[in-house]
This record gives sequence, C-alpha cells and structure tokens, in this order.
Amino acid sequence: MKGIGRFAKNIFNSIADAGENFIDDTLRRGTPLQRMENLCRDIVSHKGVASGMALAREVVNHYRELDTNEKLDFFHWLADDFGPNIEAAEKSAKDFLENPGEQAIKNLRKITKSRRYELFNRMNMAPDGTEAVVELRKDLLQYIKKKPALGVIDTDLKELLKGWFNPGFLELRRIDWETEASILEKIIRYETVHNIANWHDLKMRLVENRRCFAFFHPALEDEPLIFVEVALTRGIAASMDIVFEEREMEPDRFNTAIFYSINNCQQGLAGIPLGNFLIKRVVAEIEQEIPSIRKFSSLSPVTGFSKWLISQTKQKKPDLPELDKMMLMLLNKKDWHTDTRAISKLKKPLMQACAHYLVREKERERPINGVARFHFGNGAELYRINWMGNTTPHGLQDSFGIMVNYRYDPKDIESNHEKYIGEGKLAISKS
Amino acid sequence: MKGIGRFAKNIFNSIADAGENFIDDTLRRGTPLQRMENLCRDIVSHKGVASGMALAREVVNHYRELDTNEKLDFFHWLADDFGPNIEAAEKSAKDFLENPGEQAIKNLRKITKSRRYELFNRMNMAPDGTEAVVELRKDLLQYIKKKPALGVIDTDLKELLKGWFNPGFLELRRIDWETEASILEKIIRYETVHNIANWHDLKMRLVENRRCFAFFHPALEDEPLIFVEVALTRGIAASMDIVFEEREMEPDRFNTAIFYSINNCQQGLAGIPLGNFLIKRVVAEIEQEIPSIRKFSSLSPVTGFSKWLISQTKQKKPDLPELDKMMLMLLNKKDWHTDTRAISKLKKPLMQACAHYLVREKERERPINGVARFHFGNGAELYRINWMGNTTPHGLQDSFGIMVNYRYDPKDIESNHEKYIGEGKLAISKS
Amino acid sequence: MKGIGRFAKNIFNSIADAGENFIDDTLRRGTPLQRMENLCRDIVSHKGVASGMALAREVVNHYRELDTNEKLDFFHWLADDFGPNIEAAEKSAKDFLENPGEQAIKNLRKITKSRRYELFNRMNMAPDGTEAVVELRKDLLQYIKKKPALGVIDTDLKELLKGWFNPGFLELRRIDWETEASILEKIIRYETVHNIANWHDLKMRLVENRRCFAFFHPALEDEPLIFVEVALTRGIAASMDIVFEEREMEPDRFNTAIFYSINNCQQGLAGIPLGNFLIKRVVAEIEQEIPSIRKFSSLSPVTGFSKWLISQTKQKKPDLPELDKMMLMLLNKKDWHTDTRAISKLKKPLMQACAHYLVREKERERPINGVARFHFGNGAELYRINWMGNTTPHGLQDSFGIMVNYRYDPKDIESNHEKYIGEGKLAISKS
Amino acid sequence: MKGIGRFAKNIFNSIADAGENFIDDTLRRGTPLQRMENLCRDIVSHKGVASGMALAREVVNHYRELDTNEKLDFFHWLADDFGPNIEAAEKSAKDFLENPGEQAIKNLRKITKSRRYELFNRMNMAPDGTEAVVELRKDLLQYIKKKPALGVIDTDLKELLKGWFNPGFLELRRIDWETEASILEKIIRYETVHNIANWHDLKMRLVENRRCFAFFHPALEDEPLIFVEVALTRGIAASMDIVFEEREMEPDRFNTAIFYSINNCQQGLAGIPLGNFLIKRVVAEIEQEIPSIRKFSSLSPVTGFSKWLISQTKQKKPDLPELDKMMLMLLNKKDWHTDTRAISKLKKPLMQACAHYLVREKERERPINGVARFHFGNGAELYRINWMGNTTPHGLQDSFGIMVNYRYDPKDIESNHEKYIGEGKLAISKS
Repeated sequence: MKGIGRFAKNIFNSIADAGENFIDDTLRRGTPLQRMENLCRDIVSHKGVASGMALAREVVNHYRELDTNEKLDFFHWLADDFGPNIEAAEKSAKDFLENPGEQAIKNLRKITKSRRYELFNRMNMAPDGTEAVVELRKDLLQYIKKKPALGVIDTDLKELLKGWFNPGFLELRRIDWETEASILEKIIRYETVHNIANWHDLKMRLVENRRCFAFFHPALEDEPLIFVEVALTRGIAASMDIVFEEREMEPDRFNTAIFYSINNCQQGLAGIPLGNFLIKRVVAEIEQEIPSIRKFSSLSPVTGFSKWLISQTKQKKPDLPELDKMMLMLLNKKDWHTDTRAISKLKKPLMQACAHYLVREKERERPINGVARFHFGNGAELYRINWMGNTTPHGLQDSFGIMVNYRYDPKDIESNHEKYIGEGKLAISKS
Repeated sequence: MKGIGRFAKNIFNSIADAGENFIDDTLRRGTPLQRMENLCRDIVSHKGVASGMALAREVVNHYRELDTNEKLDFFHWLADDFGPNIEAAEKSAKDFLENPGEQAIKNLRKITKSRRYELFNRMNMAPDGTEAVVELRKDLLQYIKKKPALGVIDTDLKELLKGWFNPGFLELRRIDWETEASILEKIIRYETVHNIANWHDLKMRLVENRRCFAFFHPALEDEPLIFVEVALTRGIAASMDIVFEEREMEPDRFNTAIFYSINNCQQGLAGIPLGNFLIKRVVAEIEQEIPSIRKFSSLSPVTGFSKWLISQTKQKKPDLPELDKMMLMLLNKKDWHTDTRAISKLKKPLMQACAHYLVREKERERPINGVARFHFGNGAELYRINWMGNTTPHGLQDSFGIMVNYRYDPKDIESNHEKYIGEGKLAISKS
Repeated sequence: MKGIGRFAKNIFNSIADAGENFIDDTLRRGTPLQRMENLCRDIVSHKGVASGMALAREVVNHYRELDTNEKLDFFHWLADDFGPNIEAAEKSAKDFLENPGEQAIKNLRKITKSRRYELFNRMNMAPDGTEAVVELRKDLLQYIKKKPALGVIDTDLKELLKGWFNPGFLELRRIDWETEASILEKIIRYETVHNIANWHDLKMRLVENRRCFAFFHPALEDEPLIFVEVALTRGIAASMDIVFEEREMEPDRFNTAIFYSINNCQQGLAGIPLGNFLIKRVVAEIEQEIPSIRKFSSLSPVTGFSKWLISQTKQKKPDLPELDKMMLMLLNKKDWHTDTRAISKLKKPLMQACAHYLVREKERERPINGVARFHFGNGAELYRINWMGNTTPHGLQDSFGIMVNYRYDPKDIESNHEKYIGEGKLAISKS
Repeated sequence: MKGIGRFAKNIFNSIADAGENFIDDTLRRGTPLQRMENLCRDIVSHKGVASGMALAREVVNHYRELDTNEKLDFFHWLADDFGPNIEAAEKSAKDFLENPGEQAIKNLRKITKSRRYELFNRMNMAPDGTEAVVELRKDLLQYIKKKPALGVIDTDLKELLKGWFNPGFLELRRIDWETEASILEKIIRYETVHNIANWHDLKMRLVENRRCFAFFHPALEDEPLIFVEVALTRGIAASMDIVFEEREMEPDRFNTAIFYSINNCQQGLAGIPLGNFLIKRVVAEIEQEIPSIRKFSSLSPVTGFSKWLISQTKQKKPDLPELDKMMLMLLNKKDWHTDTRAISKLKKPLMQACAHYLVREKERERPINGVARFHFGNGAELYRINWMGNTTPHGLQDSFGIMVNYRYDPKDIESNHEKYIGEGKLAISKS
C-alpha cells in the first residue's frame, strides 16, 4: 500500500524532473521572494501540463524553504498583487451590463477568478501537491490572526478545498488494532478532547466494544482528516467513567453508541465541513454492523462553560441563577466535587446556568458554544446535561465537571437540522 | 475491494434513506419534468448536507427515469431557466463597478455561478453521484449536436469535471492477465483503435513484452477512464505487424516502447484532458521498470487521410502531389496494396500527400488531424511516416495503410510542447 | 499479489544459485538418468538446508527435462532401488523384537521410511517445489496404469501429499466476475461436468444468484485445487434447465443451494480427499451469507448408467426390470426423449433400473457409481431421481437423461456419514 | 485480512457445530482426564472428516481447560498408553521378517506410527488447530524438563511440526512502521536479545536504514514465528553503539547488512529449524533490494562467556590465559570498563579467552556456545571478536562487553556449512 504510494511519488518526481530542464534559469535568480513570485507568475501563465508539473514542484519546494518573514511577505504579495485582475474585471463587467447573457456572464465569471486560485489549483500537479496546499493554508490561518487583510487569500483556498474535499470523495476507514502503526501514531497525536496517554491507552480504545472511524482522502494517503471515537454501551452514558471503564460488556447487551470524541486532524482544513458527514456515515455504518444498536448520542464537553460563567457572574446578568461569593469560594477549593455539602449547594445553580449557556447564549442566532453549535447544526437534539460527567482536573476546570449528551435520532436528524438552519431553532429533549 | 465498494454504497443509501422522510411530498407531484424541476430547485436551495444526500439521490434517480423527450425538455429548462441569475449579476456588477475591490469581486464571482453548476456539484453527494454526472454529460453531448444552445450547460459541467478529474486525483493501474475479469471486459469493449476480437486476443496484448495502463478515479471505482496499450520492441516499429506478431522477444533486446492504442472510455469525459498526462505517467513508469528502454513512440493511424485526400484531389489544390485518374482507379481496386506495379506508382505521391496533410493542413493554427494535434500538443515530434503500416481492410480504407510514429523524447517533450502551445510550431524529425 | 509471488520465486532462485556453486560437478556427468539418480542420492544424503535448495532445484529441473522413456526408467529405479532399506529394516526389526519399546519402535519407524519419501519431501525446498511434486505424481499415475508395480512410489507420494494438503491448510476463495482472468481461465479449462463454452457462459455462472467456490493452497498460488458451482433456487431443482435458465430470481425467493458441478483441477492430487471438506465449508459459508437458504442438495449425473444398463440387459439379471428389444431400439433412436410414446414405455423401467444401479450395485460394499459413492460418503442422502434432468446429447447418451439429487441436511450429515462408514448403509429419502 | 481470518474461524466453528450433535454423550462423562482420554481415543478411531472436526474442537477445548496437574496426568497417559501399538508392531515386524518387501514394510511403517501422532494430526482440523498443537508442545517442553520420560511424545510432535513448518510453506514479510500494531506489539514482546523499551524504541529500529523481517505460517495468521533485525551500515559494525546511533546515513554509503538480533517467537516450535533459512532468505532479499550491499554479518553476543570464564578460572585449565585474583577483582568493580588501567590489564587475556571459548570449547564436536553453534552451522565464519561491543549492564555482566561478528559470505556459505556438518570444522577469518 505504502510501497505503491512511494512508488507513485517517484514517478511523479521523474516526470517533474523531465520537465525541469525547461524551467527558465531566470526564474531562479533574485531574492527568495522574487524567485517565488516569478515561479507563481509562470505557473499560472503556462498552459502545459508537463512543465506545469515541474513548475508546481518548484513552487512547492520554494515555498517550503521560505522563512517566517519571507512567507509573510509572500502572503502579502499574494493578497495585494496576485488577486483577480480588477481592470479586466471592470471591462468584463461593463461588457456584461451592456450585453447581459450566458456568454458575457461566463467571461465575467472567468475573469473574476483570482490568479491565486489558479496558482493553488496548479500546485496540485506537484508530487504531494494536495498536502502542500493544505499545509500552506495552515500557515496562512496563523498569519490571518494578526493580519486580517490576508483573509482574501483564504477565500480562494477555501473555495478550492471545499471542491477537493467534497464528501463524495472521502473514504471512511475503521481504525483498530490491526491498523498500521504509522496511522495509529497520528491518532494519538491528533486526539485533543480526551488525550491518549500512550499506546496501551490507545489499545484500550480499540477493544471489542469500542469503535474508531476516520475519513481519508485519496490524495492524502494515510493522513486521517477527522476521526470519531465511539463507545458501545447500555443506555446513554452520562459520564466518561462508563466510557473508560465498562469495556467488557456482552455484545448482546449493547443498545447505544456514544460518540465521545471527535477530532479534526488537519489545521489546514479548518472550516471545511467534515464532521457532520462523518457522524452520519458512522451512524449508518454501526446500524449496519450491529442492528441491535438503536440509540446514538454524543457525550460532549461544555467547553468554556466555567470561564463564561465566572465572567457572567461579575456582570450580574438578571436571568441567570446567581452564584454568590460563597459558591465561588467553594468552586475555588480543590476537590470541591468530593464534598457533599458543596455539591448540594452548587448542583442546581450550575446545571441551570449550563442549560442557559448552551441554549440561550447566542451570537448571530447560533449558540456561542462551539460544540453545541456543531451538534445542533448536524440535527442532534440536546438530550441531557450530566452532573459530574467528567471529574478529571481538566473537566472540572473547564466546565465544573459537567458533560452533555447530544442525541442523534435517525428519524429526527433531518427535521431538527432543517429547523435549525431555517429558523435557528434548537432541538431540546424533554428529559 | 469491490465488496467494500458495494458496502459503501449501502451505507450511502442508508443515510439517504434516513433523509428521505424529510423530502417534501409536494416534490413528488406533477409531470416527471415538473418533479425534476422541483427537486433541482430544492437541492440548490437547501443548505443541509444530509437531506441534501436524500435529495441528490432523488435527483439522480428521477433523471435516470426520464425518457428521451423529457430529458431534452429538462435540458432546455436547465439552459433557459436554471443558469446564473442575470438580474442579481447585473446588480452585483454595478456594485463592483462603483466600488471595485476584493469583496465586491468575490460577490460578483459567486453570483455569476449558475444554479446548474451548484446542482451538478450537489448531485455528487448521491450514491454513485460522480457516475451520474458523467452519464448526464454523455447524454447532453448527444443533444448538443442538434441543439447547440444547450452548450451553456456544458460550460458548467466541464468546469466542474475538470476540477474533479484533476490529474493529481487520478490513479494509474497496470492492466494485465491478473486483473479482474469485470475490468478486462471493459477494456475489450472500449478499445476502438484496434478492435479486440475476443478474450484470447486480449490475453495476447497482455503478455510479457506488452503493457497496458489505465487511469481510474477513486469515485468511479473499477471504471477505466482512459487506457494505453504498449508494445516493447527493438527499434521504433513501423507497422502493426510487429506489434501483433513479435511477442516473444528476449527482455534484454527491448529498447523501445510503442504506444499503439490510446482509448478514452467515458464519453461523458470528452474534452477533459487525460491523455497527455497518461502518456507522461506511463513513460516514467516504464523508464523505472525497464531502464534499458530509451525510446518512446506512438504508432498511430492517420485517421481520415483517405477521405481528405480524395476530397482534395477533386479540388485540384496546387501544392499537393497530383493523384491522376489512373491512380484513383488503382486505389479503388481490391488488394492494390499487394500489387507491385500499383505500389510503385502510388507510394511516393501518397507519402508526400500524407506529410502535407499532417503538417500543413491546419485549422486555427493547429493540424486538422486529431491524432496529430493530440501528439504534437503533448510535445511529441513527427518521427516517421510508414508505408503499409496497417494493411487491414480498415487501415487501407481509412489511410491507404499509412501509419505514423510520433516520438516522445523525454528531453525534448517540454520544449516541443511549449513551442507548439506558444507558436503553433510542429516538431518534425529529420528522418 | 502475483508480483509478490514472482518476487519470492526470484529470491528462492537466488538462494539456490548461491548454493549451486557447491554442487559437485560429478553430479552432472553421465546419461540423463544417471545424473538424475546421482542428484537423488545426493539430496537425501545432504543434511544442509541451503545446498539442499540448490539440489532440489537441480532435481526439479532435471526431472522436467527427462523424456517419456527416461521418466519411465527413472520411476522404475525409484521403485526398485530407492525404496526403504530392507536390510537395515530387517536389522532394526530384529532389534525391536528383542527389545520392544518406544526407542526401538522409533528407530524402526524411521528406518522403514523409504528414501523416495525423503526425496519428495526435500524437493519442496525448490522454487515451485510443491508444484513439481504434484506434477510428478500426475505423470506417475499415468505410468501406473500400465505398470502397477510402480504403485509403491505412490504410497509414499500420497502419504506426503495428504500431510501437505491437510484441510487445515486449505484456503477457500469465492470465484466471481471480479476474480483475476488468469484464475477464471483455469476454471473454464477444468470444468468437465458441464463444459463452459466461453467467457460469456462463465459470466452467466457467476451472476447474482449463482456461486462458485474453490480451494487453494498457499504454496500453489493461484492454482485452484477443486471447485464447486452452486445455483441458488426455489426448491430442489430436478433439472439442469433450472440451473441454466432461472438466473434472475428475487433474492428473497431463494431457499435452496444446488451444487451442480464439482471439479477436481489437479490430476496429481487424485485420491487426496478435498471434495467432502469443500462441500461442508461451502454449506457453512452459504448458511452464513444467506440465512434464508435452508436446503442443500447436489444435482448430479448418473455417470455410466447407460453403459451399465446395456451390459446388464445382455446378461439378463433377474432382479432388474427387463429392457426388451423394442425398448433398446427406442433408446437407439435419435430424439427418443421428445417422443411421448417412447417415454411412456421407458420412463418406469429406466427409473427403476437407475435406483437399482445407484443403491444395489456395489463393489466392496460401496456403490459402484463413483458420484453416488462420493456423496453417500460425505453424509448426503439420495433424495430424488429426476427423469429428463439433462437432455443434452451428452446427458442422454451417458445416463438416458436422468439426474439425481443427493441432499445434504446439516443435521443428518454426520449420522448418515457414520452409518455409511461403519455399516455401508446408504441414506435414502422417502421421496 | 484479519476480518477474513475471523470469518473463516466462524465458518470452521459452524461446521464443527453441525458435527457436534453427533458426539456421543458418553464422551462427556467422568473426570476431566477420563473425558480427555475418551475424546482422544474417539478422534483417532473415527474415519470421518466432519465429526472429526467437531471432535478436534472438543479435544482442543478440553485440553485448554485442564489444570496443571491434569495436563501432567494427560501427558503421562499419552506417553504410556497412547503410543504405538507394540503388540501389533511385533506381529507386523515378524511378518516383515518372514516376508520382507515393499508391502510388508509399508504395513510395518504404518503400524509403528503412534496413536499420539494421529491425534495431533487430527487436532489440526479444529479451528485454530495448528495453534493448539504448537501451544500443547510448549506445555509439554516444560514438563519434559522434570519428566524426561515424556520425551517420547515430543518425538511425534516434532516429526509432525517439521512437516507442517517445512521451509517451502513459510511466508517472509517485512516488518516496518506500516505494519499492523497487533503484530508490532508481538515484536516488542518477543525481542529478548536487545530489549525494546517502548514503541518509540521500536520505531527507531524500523527507520530508513534499518530492516526487520519475519517468517509467518499461513495457518498461524499474524503470529510471527521468528524475526531478524538488520542494520545497514558502512563496514562491519563492531559495536551496538553503531547499530543504535548511526541511523541517518545516506543510502549510497551503505555496503553492509548487520544482523544484530534474531528471535524465535514460539516456544512450541523450539528445535524446528527456521533461523538458518530466515537468514538466507533475508540475505537474498537485501541483495535484491539494495545491490550496493555486499557484506553480510551478524553482531552477536557471547552468551554465557562470563559465567564460563569464571568457572574455568576456578578450575585452572592449562591452555587458558590465566586470570589472576587482581583481574577478577577488577572485573568485579562497577564501571571497570571506563577505567583505562583496568582495560589495559584485561583486554588481551579476555579476548584470548573468548576466542578459546568460541572455538575450542566443544561438546559432541560442536561449540558449546549456542550462538556460535547456530552461525557456524549456517555456514558463517567467525570474522572478528569485538572488545567493548556492548557496554550495557547486561552486556558487561554476560560477556564482559565482548561481541562477535559471524560473517555470511554468499560464496562461502555452502562450503563452510558442508565442512561444519561433515567434519565439524569451524570457519575462522584471518582478521
């Protein structure tokens, strides 16, 4: 498998080598940035596939050799000087307005495409081209945080990558203990929701009543894009203890699949929708494999709840259960979650505040909590808020130990989803 | 492999099934064409991935059930009523002209996309979506012949398919006698340059000193897109006899790879560039496998030469060697190619005429002969014109038995290619 | 797959090459037979694995180069001069009788092994060694027909091959239209019960409601050992027409699997039990894949029935329904099976005679009909005798068109089998 | 792969289930040992393949449920009461002596086979039968240490396993970072020469200029039998430091393959020759992959040297360099190997003693050192004794840090091997 991959890469390289002789030496002069600019201009102007491959490889290699400052300069150049041709677009827009019709609009559409878009598209011809473009976007997103003006580049990249990573082209693979070590190593590295301590910990997540599925893309061989970890349980688990402890149930007692961790692996694919489709594929996969499983639910953290709540308390919002000083003191104490008295005081107000946080706190009509936004957006309903669902230090600190189940009921997914998209309505279970 | 494919299809279907409940019954009323139009409007308006899948499947299934007339009506509707939104585009164009800049041009680019484009893009979410779109284009190309106005639809389709079938996403596979029968059966069916009579004939083309390579696409599992048949020979073969007879040479005597047949398999991918890239991949593949092979050349038909020559003779063009009546009579006789006297009369003028046809006869600065156009465009040079290269009835009728070698010299490919693209210059060997 | 096979063979050869330098040149002198004898003596005396490999390859290659007479001479030499060492065995037998015990019997067992056995065992170290031994046995069985004394060689070979082809080492593979052409080609060649006319005929036997399974051995890559063709039907089919015609039934209507053709592929494995185990594996495989299938039965020819019946009639056996002259005349007429009058006369006596032939005619307490012996021995019961089950010319000539169902009822297989083995009792259905 | 394995196991089980109904209930009565004995008697008497499978599974399962004492009792029973039939053998031996010939010797050979042999052979029909037999032998070898009389059982087992694990049936696989975690986990577990500390340590042994190869058997899917770890180096490495440190050499600088660790994985296969053949296959594999590699050598420990030397010193052997008290004291000091003075005193006598130990100290004409015996037996020569080749605590304690290179020169392997086998002559390099 891998061997073939390597071989294909050699082939690619040998074609690119053949083309390389033709690359003009003038392209290789000047500062690194100048060389890069020359190459970029050249690749979008050339019409040939083959020297295109050599050029694409040059572009990829040059880009990788730029240092941090040179990359920033390069991005500024892309944003400022390598966008769409505004003058040509103006001319084309006028032509269109004078004589509106399919032909004119086709020309206009073509001319409004930026040269950056074409550049990235042609880079795909390089060996590892897809990988290089994803990597470049990862860099770009870092720079955009500080230089929002670079966002125009991302508009092009995102449009391109959405096409390349169209759900119809993704491949679902089951990850288990028979999977290649090189992929498992990446699963360990990319898991950030519930860290994997070591290989033994990983093995425990791949036992008989656990599942793990990942999406791959044919051009990014052996690079997981996103993966989900699943626990098969009896009933909808309210706490991570069940996930991490009950690993030896009889198969005929399972009736529920708990999605307890979903991780995006490629920062360069941020914002490309993959998770929604992954969950739906996995629901279907498990329904087919184990027909006795009827319930599907996440067991999700309430990321940022503590932080939000404390900031709210300072602002004394009227419709929130008040957390008085004493309560805050309690929460500050180490191991408050093992203190019965503290719990009796805190449980009710925290649970109410959490419900409020998840359902009422919105921005542009969507929940401010990212996890909630994701699951509601997928058509899940908020099924239950679980007190002491995750009592690890991280869980306590981040959300006072609370966890949430978002339930995926195959018959309701679509209507929930449509209502959410259409009306911003959140599906909330009676329980 | 296949098993997995089938399974994935089931999964797809089961997700689509889940979504189906949500498809509005109103979508199912009316004439087939009305239903189709409703579905199309719905799929491009819906924002959700999941009911999108159900809708995509509906669209695909409905389309397949339309009869010939309904399809034509549907295409007319797509061309006339489902293109870009001209009014919105006009507004956007004005906005842009008033306030030109990245944001305005982004809006303009978006608004100039036709709804058809979005429709085809979303159809990819259906099980077999890619296949369905390729199939739809095959139908469309038939209708366009009679109704050129439908060409606007193809503009969208071609743009989309060029992205999907980007060379970076294609997979090269060697076809041999170990290949699945289901694929070999397609090779037999799709070979049109030199027909494959039966399975034994096919086997003879896959022996030790023959090669066959095909491109596949991950979303069209087990469907070859294009394939090339190669003969390993000593020296650049001048005639098909060598290809079909010399099958048992010692490996250490090979020094040449002859591409003797290149076939596009998918009519729905006409015009999507695949052949150029295939040849370059195969050159690299063979160089790697058998380093002793140094020469690469096609052995190609001169499709349409006879027809062209006869039409020319009638018009008495000045710069063509004249074919007098006697000659034409000779050519009309059965088995003239075995008659020494006829040959001595005909060989020289036919060869000259052929050279003229391939090199001088142009349309928009490119050779009118499609095969020549393809190879020159790939960077090959016209190496040799071969008298009696193919003496089958078809070869004699189509090109008076003449065949041509277009040579691929790895060190010249790019410069030839660039000169051709840039200056329309044809590379012609001294020999 | 195959590539790996080829590669492994190269490796084998390169190890053998390394060893070859050490092969004594004296081994290469003399007549082909003398050389062969020298090599054989050498390989069983050498203790080393590695020059053993070189020798094994020499032995295999030399054997393959012998002509028909040389092979016969070689086999005579093997039988006469390369068997067990009788003198040593006599000594060892005396030792044992004087001092009977584990050690003495171990020595005796060892000394009674023939050198031939060791020779064949060591030949397995050659590249393709297993194949070569199977091939040698195929030759041997031909010679034995004329020279029964060579049977002693087969005693050794059979013992060895039974160990190598132990059911625990066989691999079951499904054969379908996705199978490599190189294997399908062999299926076509090895099918002798109901000939496969061409590739299209084969494809028709691999459609949705047909199955084909074969056993393979890891050391005989891509060589089927035995295969069975299965038709999924509604009810136990009485005639080949059903098998060859009803190919498009709805899957939910199947309830029966008909084994309509079982073929041994390797003549060199004659007498090594494979068929019994194949049928049981396939029954289990189908039960698992399609739980709705409850009945399993063969549809088998009554090979040799016509010949037997005619010979019987001449001898006027008392307990057989008499076939008078008129009847025999009818049977001699072409197309008698379409003549209603002939049928009315013939059906009853032929059916009775057939039942008698299958059940009563025995040799050493087993049915003389080989097919019956095979199925009874596997634990099947004689379920039904079918009039006009196979009206092809071959069917009519061989068994007057009669076919038989032997039914495999998973719950009865074992008891039938045990009774048959133990008491020679035949299981016969009431129907 | 694994999936298929699991499936096959189900099938096996379902055939065995079908047969199970027929297993006589009387077999299930009595003490565990009685039941076991009954089953064993039954399985060797039954002639049927199918109830044979059910019985085989019973035997395997019952065996696994026996406790330590019951197993010992069972082995005693096998040794005493389930061996060859002495009386029948006596009769047969007499018949043979009266009438010596092929037929009589065949009978004699058959009758001298013990029932144990047949039992183990039939156990292979069980699902996992091969595994069970290997496991049983592992148990047996433990018991034999205390009860040598049980050795008669091993005579049968070894004979059977040598046939099953014939080199012609083994499959060589490369182990790398793309290998399934489940197999890599076993490599970690089975490595005992140079322990693998963790997964990272393992990964470091599978990098670009390292290799690892293992033998597998088709019936023991995913169970490595024996593996070798190889370092590609420049020159024959004298110390483990080179193996563990120089991991990033340019490929074109390699000229040597160092076998630095060979491990048998299956205790139940002790004494079945695998290592010799493995090394030769790997030499051929590497020669093919990297033609620039010309030298092959082990870097081996001198297991037991310290222990031996100390015991010798006490006995004051004349031909050994004397280790005086002072020296012994030095060796007892921690970190003596970093003390220049100690080294200057010790190096020469230790190196001489080591040479003596490896070459002169023999038992039954073979070196007493097992590692030396293995490599000499394979045809390697003693190339060099390396001072401070392994300065880990274990290395210092076991062999005063000395390591040895046994060189495999493809052109000498066979002659060395033959001389060793024939004359017990050891190949020793001049260096």
